[in-house]
Amino acid sequence: MSFDRLLDDFDSRRPAALARVTSIVENHREGFEAILAGLHPRTGRARRIGLTGPPGAGKSTISALLVKKFRDAGLTVGVIAVDPTSPFTGGALLGDRVRMENVALDPGVFIRSMATRGSLGGLAAATREVADVLDAFGFDRLLIETVGVGQSELDVSRLADSTILVLVPESGDSIQTLKAGVMEVADIFVVNKADRPGADRLRNDVELMLGLRKGVSFGNVPAHHGVDLKRNPARAAREAAAVDNPTIWTPPVLAAIATKEEGIDRIAAALDKHFAYLEESGTLRARRRERMRERVIDVVERKVRDRLWKDSGTMAWLEDQLPSVEEGRSTPFAVADQLLLRSAELVRGELKA
Amino acid sequence: MSFDRLLDDFDSRRPAALARVTSIVENHREGFEAILAGLHPRTGRARRIGLTGPPGAGKSTISALLVKKFRDAGLTVGVIAVDPTSPFTGGALLGDRVRMENVALDPGVFIRSMATRGSLGGLAAATREVADVLDAFGFDRLLIETVGVGQSELDVSRLADSTILVLVPESGDSIQTLKAGVMEVADIFVVNKADRPGADRLRNDVELMLGLRKGVSFGNVPAHHGVDLKRNPARAAREAAAVDNPTIWTPPVLAAIATKEEGIDRIAAALDKHFAYLEESGTLRARRRERMRERVIDVVERKVRDRLWKDSGTMAWLEDQLPSVEEGRSTPFAVADQLLLRSAELVRGELKA
Repeated sequence: MSFDRLLDDFDSRRPAALARVTSIVENHREGFEAILAGLHPRTGRARRIGLTGPPGAGKSTISALLVKKFRDAGLTVGVIAVDPTSPFTGGALLGDRVRMENVALDPGVFIRSMATRGSLGGLAAATREVADVLDAFGFDRLLIETVGVGQSELDVSRLADSTILVLVPESGDSIQTLKAGVMEVADIFVVNKADRPGADRLRNDVELMLGLRKGVSFGNVPAHHGVDLKRNPARAAREAAAVDNPTIWTPPVLAAIATKEEGIDRIAAALDKHFAYLEESGTLRARRRERMRERVIDVVERKVRDRLWKDSGTMAWLEDQLPSVEEGRSTPFAVADQLLLRSAELVRGELKA
Repeated sequence: MSFDRLLDDFDSRRPAALARVTSIVENHREGFEAILAGLHPRTGRARRIGLTGPPGAGKSTISALLVKKFRDAGLTVGVIAVDPTSPFTGGALLGDRVRMENVALDPGVFIRSMATRGSLGGLAAATREVADVLDAFGFDRLLIETVGVGQSELDVSRLADSTILVLVPESGDSIQTLKAGVMEVADIFVVNKADRPGADRLRNDVELMLGLRKGVSFGNVPAHHGVDLKRNPARAAREAAAVDNPTIWTPPVLAAIATKEEGIDRIAAALDKHFAYLEESGTLRARRRERMRERVIDVVERKVRDRLWKDSGTMAWLEDQLPSVEEGRSTPFAVADQLLLRSAELVRGELKA
């Protein structure tokens, strides 16, 4: 099948074409860049929702229920599940898949599980690209589920318009182990398994950390909570301003019992409210521009890598240098400089032609 | 303090200089490349041992006991602990640190915990570089502890001469969830918590997978084990040849109860045996050359990134292009090509000068 035919079928919203295009893009098969360039003008319509939290927090159950909720409202949904933190279990997503099966037969839903593809370095880029494919296909909502958050390369908040952080009261001190970065990136907090002991305390702790409790100044947050809010002047300023300014978002801390389907309405309502805030405040535009910037940077780095390491002449040259590096007569840094110059000449010759 | 003075102190094996140099290298502070280039000729003496396994397998306890064992034999030890798969717990290594405290007061031991530094992409490179610092300082053994293994960017087998995989009989089916890649990279298997139910079965399963059991041909390995040995012709050939060829390594599957300090002698003996095999078979040379190759590739990629993204002119130019990308008049791919050409001209101008 020619690419033109494939893209025609994609435009006609044929599921087989969607699956094929997604595979080509996810696995970077030949022609994937031309496809993405062709789809690019059609992206930007879908709302991208990131769902993150520790393993076992119930992310996939909440995903499945949100999908159902969106479908009931007549919206189509694309789901991308990413789990790179299970180097020992190739089947980590199996449970999710089973749980998703109910919705998977619905043609208004498309589910893609992404594995770590050799290098974690490329996973965030590939996830962004698959999201673009689903966006261009016309899905109204994209759910991106991952365990990475805050300062991680896979930080879901960099892929999504709205980020939901799912927590569970498994251990009383779980909140103390949260990195400061996690609190910064979540737009909506969900305390799942809210019928378990410790759930109220967890919600209180999160709200305390967010500085929402009346009469609690940032200086009063106990040091043992592990996050020093005084070190977050930006957030402190934002929270202080929030009282008077409706364009400042104050992350809600919602209770849910996903296994009993409780709390999903609240999450869906918070998502709508957050998206309205994103649009009104101009934050949506800023977040999407940041995403576009990272997108270009990803592409450039990949092109550089491809030019350097897929060129047999360059690799042969590198091979010739290794003995002198091993013997201490040269260093990796000297060889790298020579290789860079070599590659610059190649790029120049190629792109100027 | 000048760099010359710092390196003099490093050469005199002053602990303060070691800590300072390690920090400069780990955090890529100014001058780190000059330091690494200076230390490069002094590397290659230490034996690098990778220790990996799922969370809770007892890696850090085994680490601490191996350190003790090495110290009793009069050897100095550097320990590098890497834990990138805990995006939610900044304090994941706290327990290890406490456990290590007994050995940490010993001047013949140096311990470094490495966090995810912004991007996972750089963690393997930074770990390799810190290992080079400890190697150049003169440590006899390096223990590199990580949860990443097999096909992961942090694959410890790519950083080490010998790789130990620690497993535990926590669940009867754990072996079935292991990726094929894990079996390929481990040189020594340790079944820890060997007094727990299921330990013997786990050892049997691992040995079965490795094709060590007499009378079991590869074709007879039950498919449900999740690893199709028929798809590993290289290993199959190796195992078949092992009977007659003493230069072929057959990974031992050792039992241990780390909390009772049982089995550590066996692990230490297996490490010595494996290193002798590495030297005799020429595998050590091949592994270290592969490491050097990846080292150069890391340096080149970092230099490219620095040149591209730390140049304010390039970033300003990129910023100017973003609106046309957002509006669909251009694509990330077209902008990337222009940016590459721009950068090639810069590199050429700089390195040719």
